[in-house]
Amino acid sequence: MSGAPETVELVRAGGPHVAGLMGRVEERLRADAAGHGPALAEHAGETIAAGGKRLRPLLVLLAAGELADEDAAETAVRSAAAVELVHSATLVHDDVLDSASLRRGRPTVVARAGRGMATAAGDLLFSRAFAALTGAPAGDRAEAVRILSDACSALARGELLQRADAWDASITRERYLLRCELKTARLFEAACALGALAADESELELGDFGRRIGLAFQLLDDVLDVSGPASRTGKHRGTDLLDGTVTLPFIAARERDERLAALDPRTIDAPEVAEEVCDRVEATGALDEVRALALELVDEARAALPAGLDARRREALELVAGGVVARYA
Amino acid sequence: MSGAPETVELVRAGGPHVAGLMGRVEERLRADAAGHGPALAEHAGETIAAGGKRLRPLLVLLAAGELADEDAAETAVRSAAAVELVHSATLVHDDVLDSASLRRGRPTVVARAGRGMATAAGDLLFSRAFAALTGAPAGDRAEAVRILSDACSALARGELLQRADAWDASITRERYLLRCELKTARLFEAACALGALAADESELELGDFGRRIGLAFQLLDDVLDVSGPASRTGKHRGTDLLDGTVTLPFIAARERDERLAALDPRTIDAPEVAEEVCDRVEATGALDEVRALALELVDEARAALPAGLDARRREALELVAGGVVARYA
Repeated sequence: MSGAPETVELVRAGGPHVAGLMGRVEERLRADAAGHGPALAEHAGETIAAGGKRLRPLLVLLAAGELADEDAAETAVRSAAAVELVHSATLVHDDVLDSASLRRGRPTVVARAGRGMATAAGDLLFSRAFAALTGAPAGDRAEAVRILSDACSALARGELLQRADAWDASITRERYLLRCELKTARLFEAACALGALAADESELELGDFGRRIGLAFQLLDDVLDVSGPASRTGKHRGTDLLDGTVTLPFIAARERDERLAALDPRTIDAPEVAEEVCDRVEATGALDEVRALALELVDEARAALPAGLDARRREALELVAGGVVARYA
Repeated sequence: MSGAPETVELVRAGGPHVAGLMGRVEERLRADAAGHGPALAEHAGETIAAGGKRLRPLLVLLAAGELADEDAAETAVRSAAAVELVHSATLVHDDVLDSASLRRGRPTVVARAGRGMATAAGDLLFSRAFAALTGAPAGDRAEAVRILSDACSALARGELLQRADAWDASITRERYLLRCELKTARLFEAACALGALAADESELELGDFGRRIGLAFQLLDDVLDVSGPASRTGKHRGTDLLDGTVTLPFIAARERDERLAALDPRTIDAPEVAEEVCDRVEATGALDEVRALALELVDEARAALPAGLDARRREALELVAGGVVARYA
């Protein structure tokens, strides 16, 4: 993670109020996971506690900026929690479908407690997200729910596209980008839009910033899966290929290397084979193309920041943009 | 179904406006399933089209009664669709967990298209429910989302309790009733509460009516699983026992029959064995006890109807109450 601003740095950049608000987001997440019976409290709670970088809720708060009053602050906190609850719900459901045993280094809900518990825990986290949003004291709550439910629909659709496309080396760039848009960018967009809404501002421009940052984030994540090193990513190179997920690095590399073009992804059936394919992909220069596209998206994201944005918010959001790039530099 | 009012009869009882509104609910359900990519449109659409009795959305409309204006009507239509979308979402997810092949006589989404598609289709239906609700032009939308998301949390928790309790003959009546409350009654309660809200009325009393009707509905459903006949239910007697679901008829019968008390539900492993156990349960008179409890709940539901309710709404809701009883008489 060298060169990338850590969460703590982003929190600091957002201003002195952000640390306090992030603490309140954590409290709310814990409270939302609890209170629905001991079994769900345990498993939903564990999912929430396992954490992650909390990039999405942080984006909500950074997009919201300094808030006029306590009602607006509480609204931002609830919106931030809602976005993280949706993100957690989709991770739990994804793990059910993949029968994944580990997530963020801990056993998944499905591994600990079975598919029934994990599906229900995911459904609970989804419904709690909407409850958190609508309990907010300020802003247009109907608009907030519309933003989040549209992002949820996109996530479901993106997850499906990815499964429908599995092992298909012939998918187009457009199709890949649509998948990234649905699977990743829309929730980033929702995070920024909800932040703007909590601050009682137009959500369009900040939403657009979030969408482009989300796309760049996914593109660079897919580069990292090929480039590694494993010591940095915590997983083998080429796990996407082993899962049958054909990403832009592979799509672009196939246009440059006939042997890759002829390769059936189903034959990539062991980590050593995946490593070899990663080496070939890298050798084509395709990763540079994808990185360049991601940097372009980050530039567009920066350009999408509204002209009238206060200096602190601009700085914090620029730092997020820079962080997405730096993490993968 | 002899003696039970059919949906069409309930629609008629609700007044001349209800048929038109139910038509709009169907349109909205179709539109909500479509528009999120062809794969989801196919599978979510098929789930919606497979239908069922539409009892829950109808309850929304009957609880709403005649509406003051088009905004209130549209709000009721959207609330009705939202409740059915949530119900459909949980059915799709339940089928994933049970690896069920048929539902309402048609192949399930999981059977047709696999677990990934079915989980995503369920998630989509959930998120569309909240979008449908918040797009409504009238009433307190935050309160509406709170009602629906609380019902969703209850459904998730109820589903989990049922799985946690599987094969456990020692569960108490209280535990069983809690499960019915969470799994069934809360969504009935939400349906009536949302109807009242669309009509800009207090949702408490009608919600209470719905909750009790829902409980009675589940109790009698569990009686029917034991009593059959299969020609009426469309499934073998004792499917609950075969699934490991211990219901009140079995709990009550165990107190009356030592051989049943000593029976390990896991040994009920074939339809013939289940039929035999059903005969023994019936012979104890336990079904009468459960029926009596259900009738009591229906009476309480009727008593919960607000005194000032207009005659047509009262009549229609009484007919629903009577229908729940008659269906199982």
